[in-house]
Parts: sequence; structure tokens; C-alpha cells
Amino acid sequence: MGAIITLTTDFGLKDAYVASMKGVMLSINPEVNLVDICHTIEPQNILQSAFVLNAAYRFFPKKSVHLVVVDPDVGSERRAIILRTPIASFVAPDNGVLSYIIQQSLIQPVTRKGKLSLRGGLKPGETLEAVHITNSRFWRLPVSPTFHGRDIFAPVAAALSLGFPPIEFGEPVTSVEVLPMSRPGKRPDGSLMGHIIHIDTFGNLITDVRNEDLPSAEKIDKIKIGSRHISGLVRTYSEGSGLIALIGSGDFIEISLKGGNAALLLDAKIGDEVLFTVQPEEEE
Amino acid sequence: MGAIITLTTDFGLKDAYVASMKGVMLSINPEVNLVDICHTIEPQNILQSAFVLNAAYRFFPKKSVHLVVVDPDVGSERRAIILRTPIASFVAPDNGVLSYIIQQSLIQPVTRKGKLSLRGGLKPGETLEAVHITNSRFWRLPVSPTFHGRDIFAPVAAALSLGFPPIEFGEPVTSVEVLPMSRPGKRPDGSLMGHIIHIDTFGNLITDVRNEDLPSAEKIDKIKIGSRHISGLVRTYSEGSGLIALIGSGDFIEISLKGGNAALLLDAKIGDEVLFTVQPEEEE
Amino acid sequence: MGAIITLTTDFGLKDAYVASMKGVMLSINPEVNLVDICHTIEPQNILQSAFVLNAAYRFFPKKSVHLVVVDPDVGSERRAIILRTPIASFVAPDNGVLSYIIQQSLIQPVTRKGKLSLRGGLKPGETLEAVHITNSRFWRLPVSPTFHGRDIFAPVAAALSLGFPPIEFGEPVTSVEVLPMSRPGKRPDGSLMGHIIHIDTFGNLITDVRNEDLPSAEKIDKIKIGSRHISGLVRTYSEGSGLIALIGSGDFIEISLKGGNAALLLDAKIGDEVLFTVQPEEEE
Repeated sequence: MGAIITLTTDFGLKDAYVASMKGVMLSINPEVNLVDICHTIEPQNILQSAFVLNAAYRFFPKKSVHLVVVDPDVGSERRAIILRTPIASFVAPDNGVLSYIIQQSLIQPVTRKGKLSLRGGLKPGETLEAVHITNSRFWRLPVSPTFHGRDIFAPVAAALSLGFPPIEFGEPVTSVEVLPMSRPGKRPDGSLMGHIIHIDTFGNLITDVRNEDLPSAEKIDKIKIGSRHISGLVRTYSEGSGLIALIGSGDFIEISLKGGNAALLLDAKIGDEVLFTVQPEEEE
Repeated sequence: MGAIITLTTDFGLKDAYVASMKGVMLSINPEVNLVDICHTIEPQNILQSAFVLNAAYRFFPKKSVHLVVVDPDVGSERRAIILRTPIASFVAPDNGVLSYIIQQSLIQPVTRKGKLSLRGGLKPGETLEAVHITNSRFWRLPVSPTFHGRDIFAPVAAALSLGFPPIEFGEPVTSVEVLPMSRPGKRPDGSLMGHIIHIDTFGNLITDVRNEDLPSAEKIDKIKIGSRHISGLVRTYSEGSGLIALIGSGDFIEISLKGGNAALLLDAKIGDEVLFTVQPEEEE
Repeated sequence: MGAIITLTTDFGLKDAYVASMKGVMLSINPEVNLVDICHTIEPQNILQSAFVLNAAYRFFPKKSVHLVVVDPDVGSERRAIILRTPIASFVAPDNGVLSYIIQQSLIQPVTRKGKLSLRGGLKPGETLEAVHITNSRFWRLPVSPTFHGRDIFAPVAAALSLGFPPIEFGEPVTSVEVLPMSRPGKRPDGSLMGHIIHIDTFGNLITDVRNEDLPSAEKIDKIKIGSRHISGLVRTYSEGSGLIALIGSGDFIEISLKGGNAALLLDAKIGDEVLFTVQPEEEE
């Protein structure tokens, strides 16, 4: 029954930062259920936090509050915002950590870094409400210029979890910062040039190619990463041998090494290219 | 008052996998109390997860549900099972992760990998009920072939925590997969050849020799690991000097380095031998 | 509404130790809200745990119970204690892990390791009540000589969270162990020699110099660490360039590398000196 707040930060596991935020939130809403998504985001890696948050948040109950503090520009002029979508609320710095969340509500892919209007280009039925957090009534005062996570984001998330409407926390805004999403490029010969966007604990290489970007799984001829070739897709990690490719649990195509770590084998890194060649369309 | 579900996985700390499972469980049972046992099991190390789970679960309240997802063969023909013992329920792939739990209920040690009947060889008063999870009514559909943790195990554990009886989730089975448990070997001269079965955060080397395997603590003469000798057992980490041996908190004999890390000093690894020589029985 | 127990240990993330303690506490107080502060304290680093605990605990609701198990001398004659301050209760080995907590209640800095009387030198309005935990009624029996965390500290913390007064757990004591707190030294020329007391996840170097130790932020002329010089303080991590110094969220002055890791750049370690020179007082 209790409200849920999830936490995604780059604060690591050895400091008091995460616990300080939890203490602040429990002081405001003693009934809140705090759930860690991830605290080992690479320091200040906004895009990584955007990816992990997006992969996790959709499995939480509707109306959960998702707190993200990956905030290299804390204390500067970057805004703190609340974003409310039809299924969840987010409390975060306005620096692109919500890019994937926003992207999902849009018809067109986000291709440039910068301010994105929340008023146009939404998918039917989608609404995005954003508020610039300016009302210090909800803050922990005095605010440390180096730790808005504790003094602004955490108390705002806790108050939001108590049911205060977003508009109580500041002024509505019509645009937010987004980072360009990595997208596969279609080539003249019909092949698709994808890119690695995440490397997981197992060394699986998650690409930006979604199932829906491909003509159909059966049509994939070869997958090329570095100097290696993979033949078509398998269904599970236990099929095939050596390097395999499959549709991962987040609906992205991923490259995996059976019984091993693909990232180590290939010395792969975020941004590396993965080429998908498709069988030529047959004449009918 | 709320039901408890514990989580043991090899999903690591940097991905969205654990949080996704938690979101799914909280969506089904908002009152459930989720407690992490461990998420840093070595990738696909079934025996390590079996050890850690067994070391922790017995301290939880009776009727807790213990979810284990170390599942290298996800999507293959390996079964998903519920195991219910007199004190707890487990939801796990049927791949041996419950080997220690099952072993504890048996009179005879498990010595071979493979299917073990749950109908014979139980200690008096023990009952083990197992169900093959086949009823998709409780699953998150469509099931990702690569993430049964999120789409089968988590929702089943959540439903189990709501009180549904195991039989609602599938068909009863009479045998489950077990891995052979490492056991010390008794030698003709009365000495005992043990093996390292776990290395903890402090570098302590936990062996497969239990207190009960030894004639009596006083009778232990020398302990030999690699080329090093240790004289008898001490009671606590702060007694003796250099390498010491003592009865650990899980009732296994362990080797420790006072004020240091025994694993680093000895370059020890799982499976390494530790020889316990006992004093000859005195004639009376 | 539920009572809160926080946990600070050096048990790491790969073993069953933390979960065992949680299971024990939930068995005693099923309603308790368990919140991790940190489990990656360097093995047996009492001062580090004292620092992290102190940085976090004050943000939790009043009357929270804070459990600390960094306990190199477990099983020896070191005492287990409960310390109650006006805002919180602590359950810990009496080995100095509460040094910062106690220091905050005192007028004079703690300069020597050893027993400190809790009856004198307190700030006005402060009271510290300490109890030597001797009443085995609340323990898990038999107590493992190597894991008091599970068998003494955890059940005592759980019982304390149920409302039992500290005196039920043992005999009052009037002195507890403290470690000397690192303190900056004032030099004849008015400059201040500080020391690094913590290095955080981002590589920020937290010194023992508090805002209040300095004449005023404007008066700081130069900060010298190793062979590097920093000019004055900035307000946030996003100001200045290269090495910067600022007042951190715990009110200590810290050294940071803009967009990087100061600890790696400087090969810094706990105890390293940081010199603060101040502008000469102007004649008026």
C-alpha cells in the first residue's frame, strides 16, 4: 500500500550519500518503500543512468516515484525537475537522465542534444508534465551547494510520494534537456549499422537495434562485430556456441558469448559498431 | 507482518535486472518485504549461490520465500521449481542451486550430480514438496526467453508470498537436480582431507569440514594447507597469531589470517585441500 | 511508522553475513524497516566506519537504531554496547566505531585513544547513556564466538527497536572507547595543516578542516596538497577548473578534480596533509 520511491545514482557503495538521502525521505514519509535501482552508475555518466533507469522503471507499480541523482553540474544553473508521465513520476536534474523515458513517448527519435519541447511529437495518448523545482518549502534548508540529492531531490521525492501534486513544487516547464539516443543507421544495401549502448554484468553487449528495427528475425543473415561474424539469432543464452546474438529482455538485440564474457573477448566498449546484414528480399 | 521474499542472484550491481524483478514483485504483492541476500554471485556459479543461500536462509522467519536466480540455462529445457521444506519455500531453476538446502534434509550425503528422489532418505520429520512451475497464469506474459527471473520466478515468488499453495503453480515432482556436495575424506590414519568450499570477503577460507566431522576439537593435532602448518583450533579471530583455524559461524572449520587475508597470503582457491591430522586415540 | 534499524558493516557484498543479521532482526521485529548505510567498509577499518556512520545517521528519523558491526576483536574481551544520545540509539562493539558520534557531543576534541568518560565535557543539553550488553536473554543462543553481529548485536538492535529500554540489556557504563579524531593543526603563521580523513567514490578528498575552523572562506589564500596549489574555495563542483576546493555536504573542506578523480590524480591517501594558508589580517 505504501508509496514506492526508487533510487538511481552514481554515488557508489562506500559512502554515506545514498543512506543520507534515504534518511531524509524516511523522515518525511515514514511509510515509503525505498527500492534501489542502481548506485554504481559510472561517475557522472548521464546516458548510462538514463539507460538503466529506463530498463527498470517500467516494471514498478504505476505512480511510483523514481529519483535519479547523476548530477555533475550540481549547484550550477541546471534545473531540478519533476517529470510526470501517465505511468510514473521522476525527480531528477534536468540534464538528460530522463532521455530514454521521454524518447519512449515520442514519435520521432531524439537526434540532437538540447531542449526538447514536451508539447509536440508525442505518441497518441501520451502526456508529459514537467515542473521546474523552485519552491523551497519542500527542501532541506540550508541547501548544500554540493548535494542537492539530499537537500532538494530526496525531500521533493518524499513529498511527491505523499501525494502533493507536481505543480506545488514549482513552475511548469514546456521543454526539458535530452541527449541524442543512439540509433542504428540503415544503409543503401538494406543492412543496419547498430552500436553497443550497454554492457551488462555478464559481458553481454546490448545494441541499439530493436527487434522492430529488423525486417524479421528470420531475415537476418550475418551479424558482424569487429572481425567476428555471427550467423543469425538464437532464442536463448544456451543455444548455439561461441558468440551468439539474440533478442534480450529489454527488446534490444544483444551479443553474448556462450558460457563466457563477450565484452572481455572482444574488448568491446560503448559505441562500438555492430553490422546486421539482411537477406535480399526475394522477388514474389 | 508482511511476507518476506529474499533474493539471491548473479545479476551484479550495475544493471536493471534485480530492480526489474523487485518492481514485478511489488506490483503483485505491494506489502511484500524484499530482502537482498546476494547479487554478486560469480556469473553462473551455481554451487556458490547454493552455499550463500544456505548460509543465510535459515535465519529468516519461517515461511519466508527465497528466490534464487542463477540460471545459466534460462530458456532451455531446465525446469523452474518451487521447493517447500518445513521452514521455507524456494523458487528457483532446477539446476542444483538448492543442493545444500536439500542435503540438509537427507541422511546420506549427496555424492553425484543428477536427479535426486525427494521421497527417500529424508531425516525423520523432514518433508520436501516440489512443484514444476508450468501454470502460466502466474507469469508475466509474454515471457522473455532470456529473463525468466523477471517473467516467471519473480511473479511466482510474489504470488507464493500472497499465500497461493505451491500446487497451484504446476505439477508435483518427485525428484530434483542436485550437485554433489564437497565432503572431507577420511584417511586410513584417521586424518581428514577437507577442501575449501567458500572464500569470504575477509579472505577467510571456509572448508567442508564441520565440527561434527572431527573427533573433538581437542583432538586436532595439526592442520596443513599448502606448505603451511597450523596447530589446533582457536576460538576467535583475535586469538593466536599468523594463520589460525577455528569453527566459523556456519559450523564449518575455516582458516583465517590474523589481521590479514588468508586467501591472498596462500593464493587459495575453491577446491584446495586442507589436511586435518588428529592425535592418535590413547589406549585406556 | 515502523521502527528503523540502519546497518553499517565491513561484511562486503558477497557473503551471507549481512542477510543473516537481517533475517535475525526480522524474526524478532517483523515490522522493522532495515536500511543499509554501508557494507563495504574496508575490513576492520574502525575509523572509516565511524566516519561513514556519522555522516549518515543524523539524517534518519529520531529514535532510529543504528547497528554497527566492524568488529576485529569479536569474541575477545571487548565489550558490546548500546549508546543512546538525545537523537538516536547505537548498538556496536566498544572499539571506537562511535568516536565521531561521541565527539560531536563533547566540548573538547578527543585527542587520545582510550576510555573516555561520558559524564564530563558534554555540550549543554547533551546526554549520552551507555550500557554494556550482558543480558543474554536477548541473544541468539548459542552465541558463535566469531559472529556476534548475528547472535548478539542484531537481536539486541531488534529488541531495542521494539521499545525495550537500554538498561534491560545490561549494566550502565560511564566510559567508552574512543579513537582520536584527526584535527587540523594551527601554525604560528596562522595557516592550518589539515589531513585527508576520507576519500569518496568520486575521488573527492575530504579533509578534517571544517568551515568553522577557518577564519572565513574569503580569507583563504592558498591550499597546498603535495606539490599542487589551489586558489581559494569555490562553491560547487562545476566551478573553476582542475583541482578545486570547496565546503562539502558534511561541512568538511574537500579537494576535488573538476570532471575527474582527485585521489587518482594525486595518488592521495588517508592521512595526507593539506595546508591552508590564510591572508594576513589587515590592520584597521
